[in-house]
Amino acid sequence: MAEFKDRPVNLLKSKFAEALYKEVKDLPIIDYHCHLSPKEIYEDEPFDNIGVMWLAGDHYKWRLMRSNGVDEKYITGDATWEEKFNYFIETVATAYGNPIQDWVALELEMFFGITLPLKKENAKAIWEKANAVIKDKKLSPRKLIKMANVEFIATTDDPTDTLEYHKLIAEDKSFTVKVVPSFRVDNILLAKDKNYKSYITKLGDAAGVKVSDLSSLEEAIIKRMDYFKSLGCKFSDVGTEAFADGIATKEEADRTFKKLLANGEYTEKEYLAFVGYMLVFLGNEYAKRDMAMQLHICVTRNSNTAMFEKCGRDAGFDCVGDALDIRRVREVLDALNSMNGLPETIIYTLNPSMYYTLITLCGAFRKVHMGISWWFCDHKRGMYETLEYVTELLHITNMVGMLTDSRSFLSYVRHDYYRQIVCDFLGGIVKDADADAISVAKALCYTNAKKIIEE
Amino acid sequence: MAEFKDRPVNLLKSKFAEALYKEVKDLPIIDYHCHLSPKEIYEDEPFDNIGVMWLAGDHYKWRLMRSNGVDEKYITGDATWEEKFNYFIETVATAYGNPIQDWVALELEMFFGITLPLKKENAKAIWEKANAVIKDKKLSPRKLIKMANVEFIATTDDPTDTLEYHKLIAEDKSFTVKVVPSFRVDNILLAKDKNYKSYITKLGDAAGVKVSDLSSLEEAIIKRMDYFKSLGCKFSDVGTEAFADGIATKEEADRTFKKLLANGEYTEKEYLAFVGYMLVFLGNEYAKRDMAMQLHICVTRNSNTAMFEKCGRDAGFDCVGDALDIRRVREVLDALNSMNGLPETIIYTLNPSMYYTLITLCGAFRKVHMGISWWFCDHKRGMYETLEYVTELLHITNMVGMLTDSRSFLSYVRHDYYRQIVCDFLGGIVKDADADAISVAKALCYTNAKKIIEE
Amino acid sequence: MAEFKDRPVNLLKSKFAEALYKEVKDLPIIDYHCHLSPKEIYEDEPFDNIGVMWLAGDHYKWRLMRSNGVDEKYITGDATWEEKFNYFIETVATAYGNPIQDWVALELEMFFGITLPLKKENAKAIWEKANAVIKDKKLSPRKLIKMANVEFIATTDDPTDTLEYHKLIAEDKSFTVKVVPSFRVDNILLAKDKNYKSYITKLGDAAGVKVSDLSSLEEAIIKRMDYFKSLGCKFSDVGTEAFADGIATKEEADRTFKKLLANGEYTEKEYLAFVGYMLVFLGNEYAKRDMAMQLHICVTRNSNTAMFEKCGRDAGFDCVGDALDIRRVREVLDALNSMNGLPETIIYTLNPSMYYTLITLCGAFRKVHMGISWWFCDHKRGMYETLEYVTELLHITNMVGMLTDSRSFLSYVRHDYYRQIVCDFLGGIVKDADADAISVAKALCYTNAKKIIEE
Repeated sequence: MAEFKDRPVNLLKSKFAEALYKEVKDLPIIDYHCHLSPKEIYEDEPFDNIGVMWLAGDHYKWRLMRSNGVDEKYITGDATWEEKFNYFIETVATAYGNPIQDWVALELEMFFGITLPLKKENAKAIWEKANAVIKDKKLSPRKLIKMANVEFIATTDDPTDTLEYHKLIAEDKSFTVKVVPSFRVDNILLAKDKNYKSYITKLGDAAGVKVSDLSSLEEAIIKRMDYFKSLGCKFSDVGTEAFADGIATKEEADRTFKKLLANGEYTEKEYLAFVGYMLVFLGNEYAKRDMAMQLHICVTRNSNTAMFEKCGRDAGFDCVGDALDIRRVREVLDALNSMNGLPETIIYTLNPSMYYTLITLCGAFRKVHMGISWWFCDHKRGMYETLEYVTELLHITNMVGMLTDSRSFLSYVRHDYYRQIVCDFLGGIVKDADADAISVAKALCYTNAKKIIEE
Repeated sequence: MAEFKDRPVNLLKSKFAEALYKEVKDLPIIDYHCHLSPKEIYEDEPFDNIGVMWLAGDHYKWRLMRSNGVDEKYITGDATWEEKFNYFIETVATAYGNPIQDWVALELEMFFGITLPLKKENAKAIWEKANAVIKDKKLSPRKLIKMANVEFIATTDDPTDTLEYHKLIAEDKSFTVKVVPSFRVDNILLAKDKNYKSYITKLGDAAGVKVSDLSSLEEAIIKRMDYFKSLGCKFSDVGTEAFADGIATKEEADRTFKKLLANGEYTEKEYLAFVGYMLVFLGNEYAKRDMAMQLHICVTRNSNTAMFEKCGRDAGFDCVGDALDIRRVREVLDALNSMNGLPETIIYTLNPSMYYTLITLCGAFRKVHMGISWWFCDHKRGMYETLEYVTELLHITNMVGMLTDSRSFLSYVRHDYYRQIVCDFLGGIVKDADADAISVAKALCYTNAKKIIEE
Repeated sequence: MAEFKDRPVNLLKSKFAEALYKEVKDLPIIDYHCHLSPKEIYEDEPFDNIGVMWLAGDHYKWRLMRSNGVDEKYITGDATWEEKFNYFIETVATAYGNPIQDWVALELEMFFGITLPLKKENAKAIWEKANAVIKDKKLSPRKLIKMANVEFIATTDDPTDTLEYHKLIAEDKSFTVKVVPSFRVDNILLAKDKNYKSYITKLGDAAGVKVSDLSSLEEAIIKRMDYFKSLGCKFSDVGTEAFADGIATKEEADRTFKKLLANGEYTEKEYLAFVGYMLVFLGNEYAKRDMAMQLHICVTRNSNTAMFEKCGRDAGFDCVGDALDIRRVREVLDALNSMNGLPETIIYTLNPSMYYTLITLCGAFRKVHMGISWWFCDHKRGMYETLEYVTELLHITNMVGMLTDSRSFLSYVRHDYYRQIVCDFLGGIVKDADADAISVAKALCYTNAKKIIEE
């Protein structure tokens, strides 16, 4: 890697920052939340070209291209990968201030050794050089994971998943990176989905339980959770649009669940109290198994109906949602805490206007942590913002560290980005890059996440 | 104009910023949203004195004076213009950090060649020098417009307006600046106003349509819209307190409209769904005519009842309103998009806590753009904030550029203010002031707005 | 005091800032809102040790220690003060960016002359030196008050309070600092509290009025307010979770109050309209007596039920509350203003997303001022933020200045912290540290608060 000052992205603005960065830059990565495919990791097929690597599924990049006026044909349409790549380079060349400009530059540097400026006139050279490197080094999922020095990967998996690839990866002794599933419960809560009933049947089948009421649903969930746990699961996750509002009693939740299954009529209030009941039930079960609970809040999905019908989910049409009434989040955490069932919890918000309510709420429960800025917020200013708010309101070491939330093996550069930001941020507020400061930098970049996976 | 460093307001903090500013500072101004009077432009009377120019109608300045404790007599009362001017200078002298301090300094420099510091002890000298310039140069509306290098002005007009002055201006070949009306529909939606029924009658009269139900209302609106269009109208606007909540069917909207006309009873829910119906109807008609839709949201009007009764509307007692549920905005845009009737749309919010929800929503619809910071938010930090958020979340070129929203011919200095800010902002994030960067600076200062008026 | 550059906390980043600071640093302190104990001031017992001074009741520090993972035994448990002190030093050593790190360093400098770095290895030396100073100088409440150059203290007192210590302090001619009560009405509004009825009885007893309906409640309140006023009361305060929503008529409020007293059933709507009625009643009575009204909004109390049951109130489990609908605040102010009964009013919000709605609302009423950032928000960035927003939206001199809200006599260093911030902020926006700028700095640090207490 080049000297800091010659790197394509250098965020280290002080000598303390540089000193701290030297201490953390080579630490392994603990990727405790991502959307990487265990199948792809297991099969480990080399990639075809940089176009497919960048543009096959990355809706961040699609949005940026749309926002720059690129025709949909060159985004999700039938253009060639090279055509799409060319439009992307043209787009990113003037995407000043957008994090993708920085990330792409870091990806080219770290995995391809390319430091050509991201300009339209360099598109052909970048295309050719990158593809040559892919061919020479046989760049594949595992290769990229090793290059990025990853030691632990928690994928995101549905409770009904067989986890066969996790088992296969674990059996392959030639690959020492730990790849474990995470328990993502959105589908259990998405009762408004027209496929809800068939999903619940599938869940019951996976667990060997006939689900007809709340008790049997709980039994099925517990069986699946134990199965996930047996394969090393340490994290759960949820990211539905609808968050709990109130907490139903078991009787109420049972009644609502039966209505949901039977396509009966229910009120929004009943539904959200059912979600509240379920989040408390799930949290308590996570706590028993030393699994951490991740809550992703304030998202609205599929805002553009016409494009949803054309491109489906996760195509770049989700948005930041409104701030939640903090009472709703507090009720779930307080209920768990009162029953001594609060797991280690990380809360992420898409809506920055919730940081103050959420971070102070974290301060009221020892096990609850503010997650680093996420998704639309995970740009440079957003990361500084989260770090700044947490240091103002809590102790800085209360944070668990970076997550990529990534759908691409190249996204590991975001850990480097984050580490530069952490060190630059600390460099601005510490009085010396001494042992204390180094220890804090390491906690935020590695050791705090390590502690959670070792609990 | 003086060297940058000697100007009364110099925001250019880097050499890239200066280089970019040189490229945009002399571009013409496209003033696509203002409250200037076409009558005043047509009649072109020279001004009396700097006091009346500054203080006759500018409620920004009135608020600042009140906030500094100046007696109402010297604000909207019967004091002389010179007395009012003196209190204003005293106020602005210590109004550190308030944009008015910067704007006034720029106005004195640009239109009067005065660079005396804004201090109480200079009040007399500024008064005399400024008035001498007014007399010497016969400063009048058109003179100021030409001095500011304006090429296009879209005023804000009621659908019932005869637009006679727009016609007269267009006929006057000695004045080459294009002055066109904009279609401002607030009064069509303000059903709670006690004059609503008589307004609707007036609208019908203007259109030659007897309005008795929703269909005839639509017919009247369309006739007026066509008339506006025939005079070059390119923009519509709305800025009511009450925004759509849900979208009524045509039948429901018709029922509600009849109640509104008959002073019948209706619920808030019915009213807001009627607004929703109307916004969709209007948007679709704009799209057919290549007129852009401007939405100004999150304002509360006339917060101080006693002063409203004394001074009327637009007297400095409006405030920032609460953030709207983003679903409400999304429903209108998505309905239009689904019917293939979404016009070019610009959304402005007074409430900064809506930037993240709104800008990501813009990212879901190609034709929807985040407006530059507006009214209470159009200070220096507010402009940087909007630019920063848009670059983080969208492509920076997605913005349409500056609007003055002005009620004063002197306000054109705000374009210079904006251009300095754009260039300084870009100067901090580009790697070079090269052709790409210049092209982006020009897009934000001129060409993007130009494209919309040429569509 | 050391040269600025050698001080443990030096926020003055320009020569203008330094010049302004020299003008304000020695001004007396007007502490117009705090939670200091008049009993402790009267009795003036010397302190035992630095541990008890810092950690006996300061829930800011408790939260920070919890957030750093310190066992509750060393926070509110039965560990010795030295043990607790040691854990606190260990915590604060790495609490980079948290205001407590700055405040503690300033406290050690100002009251103890200690400038040792806050590091674990210095814990013993700090403990011993600080305790030696306490012993040598016989540090006691009055000693600290005099050292900090305080001229006026408004404590926070319940309307039922006898105020005996205020009387005793006033009679003690050896102590010239003015210590007056403030009228804190939370308990009058907290109708959901299970002790509400007995509280109202106590209030009636204190006033010599049998309270059975709204009229007798008002009579009792007025008697107590007059009593407070007779002892120099200049400020009132309220900081309940539930803010007014609508304003009941007197008849409605009377009906609701009777239900509240009789443990009858009432709706949330009735309750909040009762609060609205009471705030208007109270405000009007304050105005008659030239007492200022303080409104503290957006707080949620006791978020962690288990810890509330263990540690009680004010133990570090309160949080930032959701933004209020600005209409609710506006209704109270506008009602008061319309009846010509609006007192000088200061509004503080815990939720930063309300700054824009609140500050613009302040701009609509001459007597209403935005309070400086409070509690969770009173860190460095929070103070700059409030100053910045107020200067953007109002005239900077519209602010009343710093309040400590403190529960510790050492907290007076926060005035120095604030003064550094004010001067640094001004230093960045004035063009010269001339008489105008000095006058503004003094207004924000002293004279504006002085004016209110002298009204």
